[in-house]
Amino acid sequence: LACAGTIEQYLDQFTRSLKLPPNLVEAIRYALLGGGKRLRPVLAWNTCEAVGGPAAQSLPAAGALELIHAFSLVHDDLPALDNDDMRRGRATLHVHAGEAMAILAGDAMMALAFEHLAQHCPAGRSSLLVQELSTATTAMIAGQVFDTLGGFPEGISAAEKLGLIHRNKTGALIRAACRMGAIAGDADTQALADVTRYGEAIGLMFQIVDDLLDVEATAQQTGKKTGKDAQAGKTTYPGILGVERSRQEVVRLQHEALEAVRPLGMRAEPLRELCRLMAERDR
Amino acid sequence: LACAGTIEQYLDQFTRSLKLPPNLVEAIRYALLGGGKRLRPVLAWNTCEAVGGPAAQSLPAAGALELIHAFSLVHDDLPALDNDDMRRGRATLHVHAGEAMAILAGDAMMALAFEHLAQHCPAGRSSLLVQELSTATTAMIAGQVFDTLGGFPEGISAAEKLGLIHRNKTGALIRAACRMGAIAGDADTQALADVTRYGEAIGLMFQIVDDLLDVEATAQQTGKKTGKDAQAGKTTYPGILGVERSRQEVVRLQHEALEAVRPLGMRAEPLRELCRLMAERDR
Repeated sequence: LACAGTIEQYLDQFTRSLKLPPNLVEAIRYALLGGGKRLRPVLAWNTCEAVGGPAAQSLPAAGALELIHAFSLVHDDLPALDNDDMRRGRATLHVHAGEAMAILAGDAMMALAFEHLAQHCPAGRSSLLVQELSTATTAMIAGQVFDTLGGFPEGISAAEKLGLIHRNKTGALIRAACRMGAIAGDADTQALADVTRYGEAIGLMFQIVDDLLDVEATAQQTGKKTGKDAQAGKTTYPGILGVERSRQEVVRLQHEALEAVRPLGMRAEPLRELCRLMAERDR
Repeated sequence: LACAGTIEQYLDQFTRSLKLPPNLVEAIRYALLGGGKRLRPVLAWNTCEAVGGPAAQSLPAAGALELIHAFSLVHDDLPALDNDDMRRGRATLHVHAGEAMAILAGDAMMALAFEHLAQHCPAGRSSLLVQELSTATTAMIAGQVFDTLGGFPEGISAAEKLGLIHRNKTGALIRAACRMGAIAGDADTQALADVTRYGEAIGLMFQIVDDLLDVEATAQQTGKKTGKDAQAGKTTYPGILGVERSRQEVVRLQHEALEAVRPLGMRAEPLRELCRLMAERDR
């Protein structure tokens, strides 16, 4: 993807310029520059272009989104939560820098995300972007509570619980990435709605693909432990729908996403390509 | 203080209206409504009035400030950080609800603080308030890193280290509380500067009084363990300056704060009263 280098450089420069204790900056850079897919920044960049905005205008949103994503990975990996010691093919932050630093660096990344929006966007847009990002962040945390500690409404089915977990835990930030890109590109109401529908479809698709990979891929491919969900007794889409119907659902959601951005015409071509890549990824 | 009831009611209503898993809401309410002094909301309320604004306009800032304060206490109390099991006379959140919930509820309170500002203030003001609050939050976290993990610039003295810890760890949010109240009250540049100087003086004063209380008060008075600083070998103001000179420094800072708000006249009377209460508090 053409924008990947620009985004990587932006994150690198942003973290170099931080006026914070050097041990904290090192921890933030370890977590943030650890070779992720940059899905959310890439979505923001491409939705911004798809609604006719200059893509560079999406960079503050892209940076803030990746900070929130990295914060959530660091905290979710902690011993008291998912207790993961491997991420992107190397030690998680609490293994690398200690648990105290992992908690504090995660906290700092969240605060920096909002500071970054407030400092680098004009007031009207920054207010909208902060609203999108904070709401999605709260939803992510609620999703992690559902996933690890319960708290579901009474009497809902296993499938409904699964939907509730993932709409919050992964879906909300992917949806927000699309909306924030569109807001950065000064989208009109209709284009914002189209992009939102696209974001909701690919967000759910992303999770189903993730669950399928946990069943089918190897740790070497994904850079993290696999087969973990079944081992942990976690409910997954393949677990509920079976592998075959999960694959069909991926196809259906891909179609839904493509339909959603059809009105945006040629400018949405990168969003279509991204949707295909996400449906077919193997790590 | 006349505003205390209004602020308490505002926090209660805000947390009741949260659309989040009930176990998460319970944890947030436990942490937020646990009978704190509400110093930062009270400062925001009174600085708003001191610059001529309608005090109610400071309530979103007040709520956001208390959310950030509560988040920081919950995370600082965690086993990997200060490992405190007692706070405000009762179990800390990780003892009450488990470590996973304490981490997630802390995260949620930070995200909610920014969401609250973005949702309840006009765009121009919300952008300024988010900038103040996020910068202060990042500073607080940096202060906690200095305090627990080091990372100081090379070659600075013990007194300079202590200043660096506290300007960040407690000073930044108290300063932000004053500035956010003034911004909520549409202060002009001069009034904002006056209130900032007041906030910096009382922020440092607050910490010296805290250190003095740790030396002199009992756990029953303060609702948390005392004598801990000396036991943990922590540097404190009485430790560096001695008790007598620390008390003199409190008097000097009190004078500095009163001088700062003198140009604001009669409307700043509650700020003067607050400064006296902070200098003389015994818990």
